Amino acid sequence: MSEKIRIGIVGYGNLGRGAELAVLQNPDMELIAVFTRRDPKLIRVSTEKVKVLPAKQAEKMINEIDVMILCGGSARDLPEQGPYFAQMFNTVDSFDTHARIPEYFAAMDKAAMAGKKTGIISIGWDPGLFSLQRMLAEAILPQGKEYTFWGRGVSQGHSDAIRKVPGVKYGVQYTIPKEDAVTRVRRGETPHLSAGDKHLRQCYVVAEEDADKEKIAAEIKSMPNYFADYETQVIFITEEQFKQEHTKMPHGGFVLRSGITGSNREHKQLMEFSLKLESNPEFTASVLVAYARAAYRLSGEGRYGAKTIFDIPLAYISPRSPAELRRELL
Amino acid sequence: MSEKIRIGIVGYGNLGRGAELAVLQNPDMELIAVFTRRDPKLIRVSTEKVKVLPAKQAEKMINEIDVMILCGGSARDLPEQGPYFAQMFNTVDSFDTHARIPEYFAAMDKAAMAGKKTGIISIGWDPGLFSLQRMLAEAILPQGKEYTFWGRGVSQGHSDAIRKVPGVKYGVQYTIPKEDAVTRVRRGETPHLSAGDKHLRQCYVVAEEDADKEKIAAEIKSMPNYFADYETQVIFITEEQFKQEHTKMPHGGFVLRSGITGSNREHKQLMEFSLKLESNPEFTASVLVAYARAAYRLSGEGRYGAKTIFDIPLAYISPRSPAELRRELL
Repeated sequence: MSEKIRIGIVGYGNLGRGAELAVLQNPDMELIAVFTRRDPKLIRVSTEKVKVLPAKQAEKMINEIDVMILCGGSARDLPEQGPYFAQMFNTVDSFDTHARIPEYFAAMDKAAMAGKKTGIISIGWDPGLFSLQRMLAEAILPQGKEYTFWGRGVSQGHSDAIRKVPGVKYGVQYTIPKEDAVTRVRRGETPHLSAGDKHLRQCYVVAEEDADKEKIAAEIKSMPNYFADYETQVIFITEEQFKQEHTKMPHGGFVLRSGITGSNREHKQLMEFSLKLESNPEFTASVLVAYARAAYRLSGEGRYGAKTIFDIPLAYISPRSPAELRRELL
Repeated sequence: MSEKIRIGIVGYGNLGRGAELAVLQNPDMELIAVFTRRDPKLIRVSTEKVKVLPAKQAEKMINEIDVMILCGGSARDLPEQGPYFAQMFNTVDSFDTHARIPEYFAAMDKAAMAGKKTGIISIGWDPGLFSLQRMLAEAILPQGKEYTFWGRGVSQGHSDAIRKVPGVKYGVQYTIPKEDAVTRVRRGETPHLSAGDKHLRQCYVVAEEDADKEKIAAEIKSMPNYFADYETQVIFITEEQFKQEHTKMPHGGFVLRSGITGSNREHKQLMEFSLKLESNPEFTASVLVAYARAAYRLSGEGRYGAKTIFDIPLAYISPRSPAELRRELL
């Protein structure tokens, strides 16, 4: 490829910074600009060649940018930002509010079709790679049962919930797959397991100086939706411990399908896809950046509208040519 | 889908029988006929509704069959059968001679284009699912190293090689990943490992009555290409033991990519896809059958010619509609 794919990033939090780093690993891409709602002067990007612009100036960059990577959150940013950018740019985003995906897809499809652009939604690892593996495994082993385990890793939503409890100064929550459940499904058993049967929630908390720790622990453990239905551990630590050991963002998990083939003599067949990530946002951003390549190519072929990970031939995310893929990787 | 996808199977060995069983698990498909070069009277299929016909009569069935699953071997059958069937039928096959894939692709593409059919080649798990995972992981983590381990499982090629050694009555070879190598790569190390560093070859042999066992073992262990470069164990057993414990066809393995993201502070990221199969041919056949659905759909859209697993949007192998996939699996 002679011309590089020109990338823009909207939103410069953990995910946006991860996307910037991921672009640097892909020689067929070039980061043109970062768009922010904060004061651009406060943002320091990797090189001076990358512009930092107010989000509102994006429309002036229509001819400068091939694909916009939307790094905002699903709750408040993307429902608005997504369709706004999709009518002007090819986009990739990580919309992850599972229940609202059909609605978001429809809005993105409408905007992208109107602008003759391609908008790839819900990319990352869940939704994203895990969805792809669930679909793949189900199609191959229709007679079977699927299990998704998350962790060991930090859940932002649960960490936020802890930090809202009175008396909590800092807090982080790790989701941890339960060993016994993991062992059973990897052995090919197909038990019925609730999310609580599969996962343990471990909370590391720094309490305010004169806070009642027992009360904090009780309040966390009884929080509906977040903790009440889970085995929850609350561990109090010092501020120093917190800053030294609990500021990283590891995550991971796995999707396993336990299936059966054969007739008289049945055979167990296990498919498993797993991730062990030292940095969740950097990995998620790496997936977004690979799919930016697909958005660019699909758009170049006139395949406009909203797309998901299910719709895209995998070759579209690789920098290699189809002939090279067949020769080297098949 | 109101009308079922009408399937034909060419070749009725382990893979063909597996395909027959897999079709039964997919309510949107129907097996119409099995084609064989043997005497059709000698073949017993699952129900009387399925015809058993000489391979040469396939051309009379052009209007009865939507997709032909080619279950012949890569060495002698497919190079001839593939293009022959691809000009008349949509096809799926498991062509697995890695070095000859470009040549086979070209021949299949020419035949399928001439007949306005879709021919999906090299489907199964390696090549196939493992190829797909290698490609996916490389595109997401360009800075990294990929490892494929095979086993624990029976290698047909190596078992055949053992059985050609004078004095061997029965023999089977298991390829086994070496624990220490597996541990290192799962820990995120990126050592250089040859196939011999990664795998152990375990041979179970039944010797002829007055054969020289030491000579047999030495001959196996020194066999170039097959065993000489590997740690090889030769274990002599009785015919009874062999028949009781070594006639199944388990296999599996995993593809792991160990990558790095970030800049100043680097983060290790591990992606792994693994299979544990009690029946290798039944699983491979299940993959072929899922991709038969894709061949049918691609052909229906006029997307003719040869395709590989890299070219096909995953949604095409699922019986679910795109809207249902977004709602249920994304």
